[in-house]
Amino acid sequence: MKRSGILNAELAAVIAGIGHGQTILIADAGMPRPSDIAIVDLAVVLGCPSFIDVVSAIVRECSIEKYTIATELLGSDSEVLPQLRACLEDTAEEAVSHTDLKELSKGALVFVRTGEATPYANVLLTASVVF
Amino acid sequence: MKRSGILNAELAAVIAGIGHGQTILIADAGMPRPSDIAIVDLAVVLGCPSFIDVVSAIVRECSIEKYTIATELLGSDSEVLPQLRACLEDTAEEAVSHTDLKELSKGALVFVRTGEATPYANVLLTASVVF
Repeated sequence: MKRSGILNAELAAVIAGIGHGQTILIADAGMPRPSDIAIVDLAVVLGCPSFIDVVSAIVRECSIEKYTIATELLGSDSEVLPQLRACLEDTAEEAVSHTDLKELSKGALVFVRTGEATPYANVLLTASVVF
Repeated sequence: MKRSGILNAELAAVIAGIGHGQTILIADAGMPRPSDIAIVDLAVVLGCPSFIDVVSAIVRECSIEKYTIATELLGSDSEVLPQLRACLEDTAEEAVSHTDLKELSKGALVFVRTGEATPYANVLLTASVVF
């Protein structure tokens, strides 16, 4: 079996093939999913797996140049924002309205659903290149 | 969104449709997957989600009359066996060789892969009826 990193076969395939500027949407359990893009549904039950566990796994395997969150997350007092920033330190942060984030998600290469039950725990990751 | 229970859309569909005597195989991250059955790949990275978290979620939603494990698990000192028995108390336990469990998995309605990294953390659940 694979020695380390992401084990989910579909997600591993997407990350292996992602190009510069393409995006991945990592979502809480309730974010609406665009109908025309690939979905990797990792949600088991509410809270499992957590948003940050999935973000961490993806960021360790895929180089990111920018991440986009909802402005509504900036105003929340959940642990998600500091955890996300710790995960993506030295990466440019951008905030748009939750409505705009939903629009942006339609252009993502893949929509990754977690079991997270924290409002606005969604992030659009923009891939960079490693050379 | 769904109020409670299993959120994974494919897994929820399988459980909603399962009939008496049909089986579900819940596996660690390394169990070989038969090629002709449905796969729900929940594995994120090693250890996430855990075997027992996924078993618990499925057992809460689906009535089970028997569970089958590998005899090799009986001889291990991992936490998996007592956790599994606690999860499935009052349900008949059956043990077969790991080789036989792999054969039995070919007849499962679905193969659910977790991120579990404990040897022999695999179980075949046989569905009962609720009436």
